[in-house]
Amino acid sequence: MSDSPKVLILMGSVSDADLMRTCWQQLAEFGVESEVRVASAHRTPDLVAELVGGAAARGVGVIIAGAGWAAHLAGAVAANTTLPVIAVPLATSSLQGLDALLSSVQMPAGVPVASTSPGRSVNAAILAAQILALSDEALSARIADLRASQAEKIRNLTVDQT
Amino acid sequence: MSDSPKVLILMGSVSDADLMRTCWQQLAEFGVESEVRVASAHRTPDLVAELVGGAAARGVGVIIAGAGWAAHLAGAVAANTTLPVIAVPLATSSLQGLDALLSSVQMPAGVPVASTSPGRSVNAAILAAQILALSDEALSARIADLRASQAEKIRNLTVDQT
Amino acid sequence: MSDSPKVLILMGSVSDADLMRTCWQQLAEFGVESEVRVASAHRTPDLVAELVGGAAARGVGVIIAGAGWAAHLAGAVAANTTLPVIAVPLATSSLQGLDALLSSVQMPAGVPVASTSPGRSVNAAILAAQILALSDEALSARIADLRASQAEKIRNLTVDQT
Amino acid sequence: MSDSPKVLILMGSVSDADLMRTCWQQLAEFGVESEVRVASAHRTPDLVAELVGGAAARGVGVIIAGAGWAAHLAGAVAANTTLPVIAVPLATSSLQGLDALLSSVQMPAGVPVASTSPGRSVNAAILAAQILALSDEALSARIADLRASQAEKIRNLTVDQT
Amino acid sequence: MSDSPKVLILMGSVSDADLMRTCWQQLAEFGVESEVRVASAHRTPDLVAELVGGAAARGVGVIIAGAGWAAHLAGAVAANTTLPVIAVPLATSSLQGLDALLSSVQMPAGVPVASTSPGRSVNAAILAAQILALSDEALSARIADLRASQAEKIRNLTVDQT
Amino acid sequence: MSDSPKVLILMGSVSDADLMRTCWQQLAEFGVESEVRVASAHRTPDLVAELVGGAAARGVGVIIAGAGWAAHLAGAVAANTTLPVIAVPLATSSLQGLDALLSSVQMPAGVPVASTSPGRSVNAAILAAQILALSDEALSARIADLRASQAEKIRNLTVDQT
Amino acid sequence: MSDSPKVLILMGSVSDADLMRTCWQQLAEFGVESEVRVASAHRTPDLVAELVGGAAARGVGVIIAGAGWAAHLAGAVAANTTLPVIAVPLATSSLQGLDALLSSVQMPAGVPVASTSPGRSVNAAILAAQILALSDEALSARIADLRASQAEKIRNLTVDQT
Amino acid sequence: MSDSPKVLILMGSVSDADLMRTCWQQLAEFGVESEVRVASAHRTPDLVAELVGGAAARGVGVIIAGAGWAAHLAGAVAANTTLPVIAVPLATSSLQGLDALLSSVQMPAGVPVASTSPGRSVNAAILAAQILALSDEALSARIADLRASQAEKIRNLTVDQT
Repeated sequence: MSDSPKVLILMGSVSDADLMRTCWQQLAEFGVESEVRVASAHRTPDLVAELVGGAAARGVGVIIAGAGWAAHLAGAVAANTTLPVIAVPLATSSLQGLDALLSSVQMPAGVPVASTSPGRSVNAAILAAQILALSDEALSARIADLRASQAEKIRNLTVDQT
Repeated sequence: MSDSPKVLILMGSVSDADLMRTCWQQLAEFGVESEVRVASAHRTPDLVAELVGGAAARGVGVIIAGAGWAAHLAGAVAANTTLPVIAVPLATSSLQGLDALLSSVQMPAGVPVASTSPGRSVNAAILAAQILALSDEALSARIADLRASQAEKIRNLTVDQT
Repeated sequence: MSDSPKVLILMGSVSDADLMRTCWQQLAEFGVESEVRVASAHRTPDLVAELVGGAAARGVGVIIAGAGWAAHLAGAVAANTTLPVIAVPLATSSLQGLDALLSSVQMPAGVPVASTSPGRSVNAAILAAQILALSDEALSARIADLRASQAEKIRNLTVDQT
Repeated sequence: MSDSPKVLILMGSVSDADLMRTCWQQLAEFGVESEVRVASAHRTPDLVAELVGGAAARGVGVIIAGAGWAAHLAGAVAANTTLPVIAVPLATSSLQGLDALLSSVQMPAGVPVASTSPGRSVNAAILAAQILALSDEALSARIADLRASQAEKIRNLTVDQT
Repeated sequence: MSDSPKVLILMGSVSDADLMRTCWQQLAEFGVESEVRVASAHRTPDLVAELVGGAAARGVGVIIAGAGWAAHLAGAVAANTTLPVIAVPLATSSLQGLDALLSSVQMPAGVPVASTSPGRSVNAAILAAQILALSDEALSARIADLRASQAEKIRNLTVDQT
Repeated sequence: MSDSPKVLILMGSVSDADLMRTCWQQLAEFGVESEVRVASAHRTPDLVAELVGGAAARGVGVIIAGAGWAAHLAGAVAANTTLPVIAVPLATSSLQGLDALLSSVQMPAGVPVASTSPGRSVNAAILAAQILALSDEALSARIADLRASQAEKIRNLTVDQT
Repeated sequence: MSDSPKVLILMGSVSDADLMRTCWQQLAEFGVESEVRVASAHRTPDLVAELVGGAAARGVGVIIAGAGWAAHLAGAVAANTTLPVIAVPLATSSLQGLDALLSSVQMPAGVPVASTSPGRSVNAAILAAQILALSDEALSARIADLRASQAEKIRNLTVDQT
Repeated sequence: MSDSPKVLILMGSVSDADLMRTCWQQLAEFGVESEVRVASAHRTPDLVAELVGGAAARGVGVIIAGAGWAAHLAGAVAANTTLPVIAVPLATSSLQGLDALLSSVQMPAGVPVASTSPGRSVNAAILAAQILALSDEALSARIADLRASQAEKIRNLTVDQT
């Protein structure tokens, strides 16, 4: 298990869990501990503030927020912390994630959010790990290994050309 | 002056004031009192919660929130009150208001926001007045007068057909 | 049952009924009476004018209009009343609701429509109730209860972190 | 002057006149009479119904409607007549005419509108003339002449290739 | 059967036939004769020119062109005739008809196309009939009947409000 | 001067010349001859067919077509030749080139067009040269030189970091 | 078999093979040899550089790159060669290919990519063949034959007009 | 001056410097050292690989990449490192940054990029600082100070309500 701080993963609705699952699974593979909670920027603003406000004290280093529609969750998290915040916009409305992407990424000057692509929750996990790896060499090596093994797999592929 | 509750007008940045001015001007013409404040969902979440949480007690009946980019202000307001909340998305980014519109309107089930069109802050004022007019006959008459005078002006227009 | 005015729910086509059902169901849960009719801005403009023109006299306080495609219904309603009008754009064309959203929300100065998000008809009901609750304390309490119970449910969620 | 029916040109706002001017100018060049009026689907629905309802009796054969934003004018006209209705969406909002185009073209089954491109009011005039020319040979010849002279001009162009 | 000119219906691909079927069916209900052909602006430009060039001589009064993707068919037709040309953009690519709509409607000054909404081929038929009805009173009456019966049906609808 | 075939550059309107100028200038720098003409897919379809049909016989190897709005020019060219056709969509309408891009690129199976980005006419020239360079080593060397000198310039840049 | 150079077909992921299959099948029908490899601009940048850098020496004349999402593959290929590069954007994300199209086509001045439409990999094959056919008359004849047979098939179609 | 690793700021073109300036200015205010270079993913892929490959060894902890159009720079950087990479999409084409945003954010699984909003280069600086602050308490305090002073400024604003 990594000595790094842990990652707090929030999602706006319990129905987002299937889309966010690869996020904590990837962190677990890296040996990074994660804390997973449902908290809605609009339905439970106090819970968001509470979970985020005490995060650093609980040993959290990075926060990931997955949400669809007018995805305010990452922004609401960022408003309550200066820890790095990663958004995973979710393509759960009829507008295919363009709404969630713009709601996540278009933050005002002073309060940044790091947006990944709609639905790619695994990348949020890897980005969080890359951040934590700045002071965790073992984690850094695990990330490099993942990258190398992905590349190796692709290098060895052949396409059935019929 | 109307006996109706007053309207709280929030904007996310002081640079939005020019775009929001027709809002309080129209309310003033209707004789509806307004309280105008800058409060950012991301830079001052506590101020938003504070201004909104005590609004009903200060005699506020409707809240209008104008913001651009990832316009979370109306949503952050709605998260803190059950008063009707009206959004004025502002077309202040390179994406021409589509970002602010989607960030305002795509609210989750349970926490509605009433969105008007990007930049039409005067309509937010009229909508607020229409809501207050449900229990204020004099105000209702003033709205009907505005509508009638607009129609009259159009009826009397002639176009220089050259 | 609430003493509040009732809500008139119009939809542009009978095929929209399934998308609008949560609207009158939510109002019924709040004890707010609703009147539900199909009326098309383009196929039955007279019927729209007739239903809307007489609405206040029938005890209607708020009008909700659900429509897809070039969703003119809310606008056509607003043109015939100064009661608050709420639009529910419906994502029924190939363009996923962007057409209905823009057709609903981009109203001219003087004739506002309150747009909710494509397909979220339950939010139109809650918004209507929030408006009526300004002069109906019992209704206001019921809305606050719904909000609290939603928040409570989320607070108690745990995510199966495998 | 043509013996053809005349063309009724409506625009939603007097500020649209500059964008619509080429429309009546082109009709005048074709010798087709036009009647130009401002009438708003939302601010003066009765005026629209009045102007359109009596149009055929006044010798109108085709109706052109120019409007921006949630451009309902052509649809409101079409709802009140079975004469052919041509829409000129105008790019007058921050959304560059996409709003007006979708609001104009996405009509429900049974009530068609013929949409031209955002801002090309001259094409609405030519389309109206093409319709009227089906029973007016002299007009048909004038349209063919315009087309031929446009083609001739292009054939004779040389480009300064430096 | 109507004495009116007939309608030439072109489609860019035989796979578009299912989407265009309501077009000739509606014309047949109106008693308007139609000629239906597949002709591609890109794969058979000569066939398009041939079918369109001789159309007036074959008694064609209006041409309808249905196509998807970069829907050039209506434009290619309009380039070869001064008869009114109606486009039916088809939502057959991954871009949901926005590509076909813009390719159809954004015509240059001088060569108009009348665009209907993506996939609404029935409206192209009704628009064609409205054009032909300018000199065919019986056809005009049939269109008015269709409109009236549609309205009647809507007026009599009741919604199961459960 | 190159021994390669020449490049035919068409543009849909003489007003496009300023946007297309870098195209023939770049070809001239490469020593590739170009023939520049205005020809509209909609206003002069015969001229397009004529210029394109005889192109190979005149020594043309590649055709470049620049057009805005419903940019059918490249498609109309491709319909009349099996030479490689390069499109330069132009951002000349209110829709900022998205219309021209989709109208250019969404070609049907069997008739490809090679689209470059809206307004980058210099890239069409370079692409044409790359195609011709497959059998012209001197030209290939000139392209490699341009690329190398661009890279060299960037390598030597320093940014004033104040 | 053609004497022409061969075509290198790259795809960003092995899951793209089904969408790219018509590409090499069409080349095979033309008798053009192709080399098909998976290589990712982001996961295996070295492999891309390696496959592309040595391509000309292996007898490759044209390179086709199919990729979805932020489709950088064609751009990464073009950065490493002056051979003509054709992009096939793939509609594999929730954004329906608009992301891949813009990522492929919006190349900077100096490094062109020839983009075809999202998902039309057969057209990339035909475009590649058209390029190679500039110095291969037999191939040119085969392309003309394909075009002629497509046209013939369309000319002979009849539509079941019921 | 901070003891933290430094930040490498790359931009795709020297013309992007004005849009990126707030980035290094903000880092300087935080006392974080930055290294600023122009390097193009397409025109100088080797320079990108060189600058990025040796970055960790030069003491770089975070890399920021600003680019417009098909903004591949951040992706090309991420392909060559496992350090955290932050993208600043730039709205420099006619498509207003939507192209650059999608090209930056839609990265494949395994190679994340942290995207900020189009043109907000100051937020990239703050995000980089937040990342470095995980192991630099003094820097963390400076970020908190900036946030507090921004909030304080907003709290003290009054709007001239005329």
